Amino acid sequence: MYRKEHDSVGNIDIPKEAYYGVNAQRAVDNFQITKLKLDPLFVESLVEIKKATAMANMELGELDIKIGEAIIKAADEMLQGNLYDQMIVDPIQGGAGTSTNMNINEVLANRAIELLGGEKGDYTVVSPNDHVNKGQSTNDVYPSAGKLTFLKMMDQLLPTLSDLAAAFKVKAEAFKDIKKMGRTQLSDAVPITVGAEFNAYYVLTKRNIARLVNVRSEISSLNMGGTAIGTGISAHNDLPNMVVKHLNSITGFDLEVAEDLVDGTQNIDCYAVVSDCLKTIALSTSKVANDIRLLSSGPRTGLGELFIPSRQNGSSIMPGKINPVIPEVVTQAAFLVAGHNVTISMAVEAGQLELNAFEPVIFYTMIESFNALTNAFRSFIDNCVIGIEVNEKRCRELLERSTYLTTSLASHIGYDEASSITKQSLREDKTVLEVAREHGVSESILKQIMD
Amino acid sequence: MYRKEHDSVGNIDIPKEAYYGVNAQRAVDNFQITKLKLDPLFVESLVEIKKATAMANMELGELDIKIGEAIIKAADEMLQGNLYDQMIVDPIQGGAGTSTNMNINEVLANRAIELLGGEKGDYTVVSPNDHVNKGQSTNDVYPSAGKLTFLKMMDQLLPTLSDLAAAFKVKAEAFKDIKKMGRTQLSDAVPITVGAEFNAYYVLTKRNIARLVNVRSEISSLNMGGTAIGTGISAHNDLPNMVVKHLNSITGFDLEVAEDLVDGTQNIDCYAVVSDCLKTIALSTSKVANDIRLLSSGPRTGLGELFIPSRQNGSSIMPGKINPVIPEVVTQAAFLVAGHNVTISMAVEAGQLELNAFEPVIFYTMIESFNALTNAFRSFIDNCVIGIEVNEKRCRELLERSTYLTTSLASHIGYDEASSITKQSLREDKTVLEVAREHGVSESILKQIMD
Amino acid sequence: MYRKEHDSVGNIDIPKEAYYGVNAQRAVDNFQITKLKLDPLFVESLVEIKKATAMANMELGELDIKIGEAIIKAADEMLQGNLYDQMIVDPIQGGAGTSTNMNINEVLANRAIELLGGEKGDYTVVSPNDHVNKGQSTNDVYPSAGKLTFLKMMDQLLPTLSDLAAAFKVKAEAFKDIKKMGRTQLSDAVPITVGAEFNAYYVLTKRNIARLVNVRSEISSLNMGGTAIGTGISAHNDLPNMVVKHLNSITGFDLEVAEDLVDGTQNIDCYAVVSDCLKTIALSTSKVANDIRLLSSGPRTGLGELFIPSRQNGSSIMPGKINPVIPEVVTQAAFLVAGHNVTISMAVEAGQLELNAFEPVIFYTMIESFNALTNAFRSFIDNCVIGIEVNEKRCRELLERSTYLTTSLASHIGYDEASSITKQSLREDKTVLEVAREHGVSESILKQIMD
Amino acid sequence: MYRKEHDSVGNIDIPKEAYYGVNAQRAVDNFQITKLKLDPLFVESLVEIKKATAMANMELGELDIKIGEAIIKAADEMLQGNLYDQMIVDPIQGGAGTSTNMNINEVLANRAIELLGGEKGDYTVVSPNDHVNKGQSTNDVYPSAGKLTFLKMMDQLLPTLSDLAAAFKVKAEAFKDIKKMGRTQLSDAVPITVGAEFNAYYVLTKRNIARLVNVRSEISSLNMGGTAIGTGISAHNDLPNMVVKHLNSITGFDLEVAEDLVDGTQNIDCYAVVSDCLKTIALSTSKVANDIRLLSSGPRTGLGELFIPSRQNGSSIMPGKINPVIPEVVTQAAFLVAGHNVTISMAVEAGQLELNAFEPVIFYTMIESFNALTNAFRSFIDNCVIGIEVNEKRCRELLERSTYLTTSLASHIGYDEASSITKQSLREDKTVLEVAREHGVSESILKQIMD
Repeated sequence: MYRKEHDSVGNIDIPKEAYYGVNAQRAVDNFQITKLKLDPLFVESLVEIKKATAMANMELGELDIKIGEAIIKAADEMLQGNLYDQMIVDPIQGGAGTSTNMNINEVLANRAIELLGGEKGDYTVVSPNDHVNKGQSTNDVYPSAGKLTFLKMMDQLLPTLSDLAAAFKVKAEAFKDIKKMGRTQLSDAVPITVGAEFNAYYVLTKRNIARLVNVRSEISSLNMGGTAIGTGISAHNDLPNMVVKHLNSITGFDLEVAEDLVDGTQNIDCYAVVSDCLKTIALSTSKVANDIRLLSSGPRTGLGELFIPSRQNGSSIMPGKINPVIPEVVTQAAFLVAGHNVTISMAVEAGQLELNAFEPVIFYTMIESFNALTNAFRSFIDNCVIGIEVNEKRCRELLERSTYLTTSLASHIGYDEASSITKQSLREDKTVLEVAREHGVSESILKQIMD
Repeated sequence: MYRKEHDSVGNIDIPKEAYYGVNAQRAVDNFQITKLKLDPLFVESLVEIKKATAMANMELGELDIKIGEAIIKAADEMLQGNLYDQMIVDPIQGGAGTSTNMNINEVLANRAIELLGGEKGDYTVVSPNDHVNKGQSTNDVYPSAGKLTFLKMMDQLLPTLSDLAAAFKVKAEAFKDIKKMGRTQLSDAVPITVGAEFNAYYVLTKRNIARLVNVRSEISSLNMGGTAIGTGISAHNDLPNMVVKHLNSITGFDLEVAEDLVDGTQNIDCYAVVSDCLKTIALSTSKVANDIRLLSSGPRTGLGELFIPSRQNGSSIMPGKINPVIPEVVTQAAFLVAGHNVTISMAVEAGQLELNAFEPVIFYTMIESFNALTNAFRSFIDNCVIGIEVNEKRCRELLERSTYLTTSLASHIGYDEASSITKQSLREDKTVLEVAREHGVSESILKQIMD
Repeated sequence: MYRKEHDSVGNIDIPKEAYYGVNAQRAVDNFQITKLKLDPLFVESLVEIKKATAMANMELGELDIKIGEAIIKAADEMLQGNLYDQMIVDPIQGGAGTSTNMNINEVLANRAIELLGGEKGDYTVVSPNDHVNKGQSTNDVYPSAGKLTFLKMMDQLLPTLSDLAAAFKVKAEAFKDIKKMGRTQLSDAVPITVGAEFNAYYVLTKRNIARLVNVRSEISSLNMGGTAIGTGISAHNDLPNMVVKHLNSITGFDLEVAEDLVDGTQNIDCYAVVSDCLKTIALSTSKVANDIRLLSSGPRTGLGELFIPSRQNGSSIMPGKINPVIPEVVTQAAFLVAGHNVTISMAVEAGQLELNAFEPVIFYTMIESFNALTNAFRSFIDNCVIGIEVNEKRCRELLERSTYLTTSLASHIGYDEASSITKQSLREDKTVLEVAREHGVSESILKQIMD
Repeated sequence: MYRKEHDSVGNIDIPKEAYYGVNAQRAVDNFQITKLKLDPLFVESLVEIKKATAMANMELGELDIKIGEAIIKAADEMLQGNLYDQMIVDPIQGGAGTSTNMNINEVLANRAIELLGGEKGDYTVVSPNDHVNKGQSTNDVYPSAGKLTFLKMMDQLLPTLSDLAAAFKVKAEAFKDIKKMGRTQLSDAVPITVGAEFNAYYVLTKRNIARLVNVRSEISSLNMGGTAIGTGISAHNDLPNMVVKHLNSITGFDLEVAEDLVDGTQNIDCYAVVSDCLKTIALSTSKVANDIRLLSSGPRTGLGELFIPSRQNGSSIMPGKINPVIPEVVTQAAFLVAGHNVTISMAVEAGQLELNAFEPVIFYTMIESFNALTNAFRSFIDNCVIGIEVNEKRCRELLERSTYLTTSLASHIGYDEASSITKQSLREDKTVLEVAREHGVSESILKQIMD
């Protein structure tokens, strides 16, 4: 049932059928923090890196062809979805990702051993360190896998944001002639159209898309081939370029070799920038979600200018209550992302000398941020924005009730006089026109401001 | 294969064998944010509340005995671990927890229906709203379940902290006579003992324990019976006391009724306080973990005063490298908790009027914070602290090499003169005693400061 | 015009009339971060510590009586408000506060020299290090001064919070019979009274007061006498108790000696706890300020249930516009405090070994947090809360317009039936009673729920 | 001594000589939060906007030439540094900046009145609202002034960052041949050069510069002319373009009109992006500062590889102690900026509908962030980086003592065998070469790895 494996700590029993080995098992013993597994996209990225590097090493004559091909075959099997259950390490781990890197090295090695007719655990056939990890270090593999993963996740978030922008634009067009009261500081201001509000949401979302596109370059250069601390020790000089070439062909991305491998290994400010971008997208969209909650508040005792789709019973005790559940979840996702940004910021700052040991918690939270945003925005589009309608009657009533005309009046009679008309109008519950006439404002002026 | 259910939105197909119903299904359609399930302890707490309230309602004559007993039996089954897979809603959800509350209402109702010989979905037998949720609202059930859960999690974290304190104390005793150099701002200061350092960690941890104990009272009062917005509408006047009585007997806790049910429903500052406490525990312990990383740095080019246990290979490329993986994961857990504290703080601030709609993200992050801390500290104790040893030779060497004697000397010859001895000693690579003699300091003074 | 002073770096010119010396001047050259001065309460606390320690040292025979009395006289002059302009260092500084400690040492030394008939700068008369700083280190003086300052600031914040609680209570009483619609998630829920809402604010504020009182003990124990890294080196064994005795008599506080001087020097988690408490007070009160903004929104197109006092013109362009400027500034103060909490949290975590070098930024932000909260709450009380009135007509209108009766109805006819009445009522713009009658609900039930 | 002024609240006494008026005075009565004044650069930006708009209004025939010229003359006087003491409002204020806008309107109006021979306070001559604020609203003036200010502050931070990059580059060149031990996770890794480390700092800083340059476009478009909520009400249609034209000529910037004035008024995500950029610059540079503290730790019991300049006495009690005070203040500035980023993030999220009322706290904290970073980095360059030297002897000793050779050895003899050599070498305190020979590694291999 078990095979023996050993490492620098000692011997350990590994289930005979397991593809993972001693290093992964040690990590499980040491780290049970979230009790979750690595994100599948992250595992996929690891496999792609292992495959590309094996190809590069073979091309450079650094890796025995038979072994290399077995590794590539094992990698291809994983890329088709196999053996993910053999990635057993907790995403939050000490060791700067070494456990994760060794887990994938072990799985690929053991599968390659099998493919070559060996017995799992017989690392003389294929070694996790000497063959699968050939010319690599956790120092380059782990951050590179993070970057690939985030690029993929951008490719999920970006079309979602585009759909959100499009949904806002549709509403901006549909509502472009519906006048309503504008409010600043929750207080009556001057009229605006519902369409202008939705157009502002649209322009904001376009800007967020541009930011996300812009930030791609932060994570498009890899330190592969830098091995330990960016020195390139144990790796062929041409490995960096060669790995990137193969990775580009495997992933379809447009990756580059880092400008400076030492910098690329020790400084991970790029993750802070990506996280910052997610945070700004999250919080600025939360503001929109909050607006929609405010504008749809009611149905009878709120602002009530918008109708949003009913998605579920709002209360276990209040029958017929409908709540803005979708905008609420958008805001919660935004708070989650904002908190993760602090975690990531602290982790980025905490790097020391040639490496930052805290990448695992960065990757864990960043992946959750990407997923939470993409999922929340998708629901926001499908279950809320596209179904929004305007309560035109309500918009009109509120507009008529307000005193906004005095702002236009001020250009003609001065701010102070207009101010006293506003106050009297509110105090005596009269229309602005009535009070203006009492103040002797001419009909020609009144006619002008009505347009 | 399916049964029809309906709610205020319309009809929906539910798998015939499912215990959940339309409300849970709607939530799944609306919220796929984390794609995780509710924490089992949280589900348990929900069930305990449902059971206690059914008992209270029966006692108050508000719930048919036959129905009540079926609900209680269903609850007892769940408390033995059944039907947890029927809790299908995402922990992050809009609706202030209504989906969660309805999910448990539906599961208990359907199981109770079965127990009474009915067909799942036939809510004329037992109604999720009218019977299981009798005298309740999500407004009181959901926050109360959160509080119960956090109390349970405190009961996991507290003994872990106690073990950590004990482990530090053991080391403080063991190392109490080993002198070493103290450092401020990473610069040589004056001698201290290794034991005194570990005793400081011990005293800190005791203080953290006291804080956590102290914070229990923040979440020991429940707003059960407050129903909608704390008004107690639809609930018997004696329900609050009665539910708490039963809950105390079920859980063994010492819960109370909230001082003011309206406040208890709309203000959730208590969660901020619990989260703050976790954050301070996390960050202050991370400082200790960082100290241990510093002191054990090396083995050859670091401070090297401590040996920490080797737990796993430190590198995929550097053979024999051992890293401080356990302290590293403690710090990562701390960063996670610190980020969650910001999420929780933002969510607490965002409450509006009679309710805070953002409790789900608070609960999700708080539960992860509790678990991450408990798990990381457990590993810290078992895999690091208890195995720490001192490199006495190294401590002695460093001490001998330093110039700390001038601090004692200053009391005799003045700060300025002592300062120039330090500088000369460093510049000329001589001992303080040598230079002091050159400066004409008397042997009797030198003798005194040597003690 | 200048006198020469020197330190371990070299010689420097100091203005002849200056009471500060070389160390303060170096700090000014090194640190121009905020370009602000130390808070006066913090300077006062430093002086109190210097005075108390001089008294203790004299009592213990460690300090020449004539020199000691001159120092005390100089301190007393400062306590009457003199020489504050001689404290020239930037509050944010490297060196863990040494520049601040030396600045006060120099000012007191030079003033004492003058009092003894010497020339400023002639430190053979009174030495900043050997006499004013006798038996002290920045390691104990600086954090102790911080704690004293925060205790004083608590004594400013606490009565402000008490006044805020009292103001809420007055309103709770005044409005206790005014019914209004309650809202959850900005959606119509069930009726509540305005008084109940204000009572919730009152209960919250009482709880915040209790928290602040509770947190005092976190900063009531001092590490004075611990000198360098808590070892007590160069200090008399009885100094800790003696200093605390004198400080208690000078300040009227109830201070204690730290349980463990090493812990008391290296671990500064106590500041995190104080800051956390401020943050929770800030954010929970911001929620109340936001509620008041929501409830007073309008005047014509908002919720409009409350009137808050007009404090200033709301707009430079919209005449007569009045904005909720006071609640807005409360929320901004809260955001400031929440950000400072992150700064403080990061700084607390960053301590290393025997000392935390980052106390200066902690003190700078904490002092601003205390002041901003005290000032914002004072304005909140005086310029907003005490002047709040209810728009009873509006409350009544909104209540009548809503469908809340169906919640009571559900107890009689079931949640599902009540739900369909709500929906029809909203759809057809009819009252709940009308629709209930159409659904055949009996008059006796309708009569019951009307009560 | 006093003149009477009035506003919508009532009458008020203003000191006869004051240039500010009723609105500024109300703000002082309402807001005493920081008790500080507006930043001079921010005031300058306000004046530039007022001047440019007056010019534009005159050109468009919207403002009487005589009045317009008086306003411009008053503005020019302020731009030469006069009347700054008349800006009396607290930077943190409710009202979304209206108090600030009115303060400058009043000061310019009263000075213009004087210039036209009138009496201060006689707003029939020049009106703060109708003339100085002509075609403007706080909604456009205040955020535009913020953007101008940040652009100016970027122009202070950017050259500072360039100098920092240059200083690192000089060191990278100077130290490029000095070998030293590299460390990951504070544990011995493989050799690197000191120059490579400094080059990584240089590359990082270049990247930070590029980010800051890149972020300029976020704040280069203004919503001037949008007036209330972006509608352009009361303003000439050509005002936006005209104001920007004049502002570009006054400031030398390359400003543009916002794509959408409604979006440009209500969404202020651009500030979050600027703040995020500052935060990333701050935290990534703090990592470098921490590295320098680590590498220069000692002098006798730390890593001791670098010498940094002595800048001041390090201790009030430990003679001759020198601390890394400059890197410490860099890290503190970074923590301050990171906290401010949370404040700004929360404030950006809290915007509601047509406006964000929380800009004042954003501006206050952002200005402090810019200043703190610029000042801290300037000190970092001048007082630390340019004076750094290497302790070559120490670097060599540590390198010789370490076991790094086994990493190269692994390529020849496999990871596992190399690992056991490392362990034996450490355990028996022998060199790697010795142990390798014991293990039978051939001399030719040993020779190879020595190169």
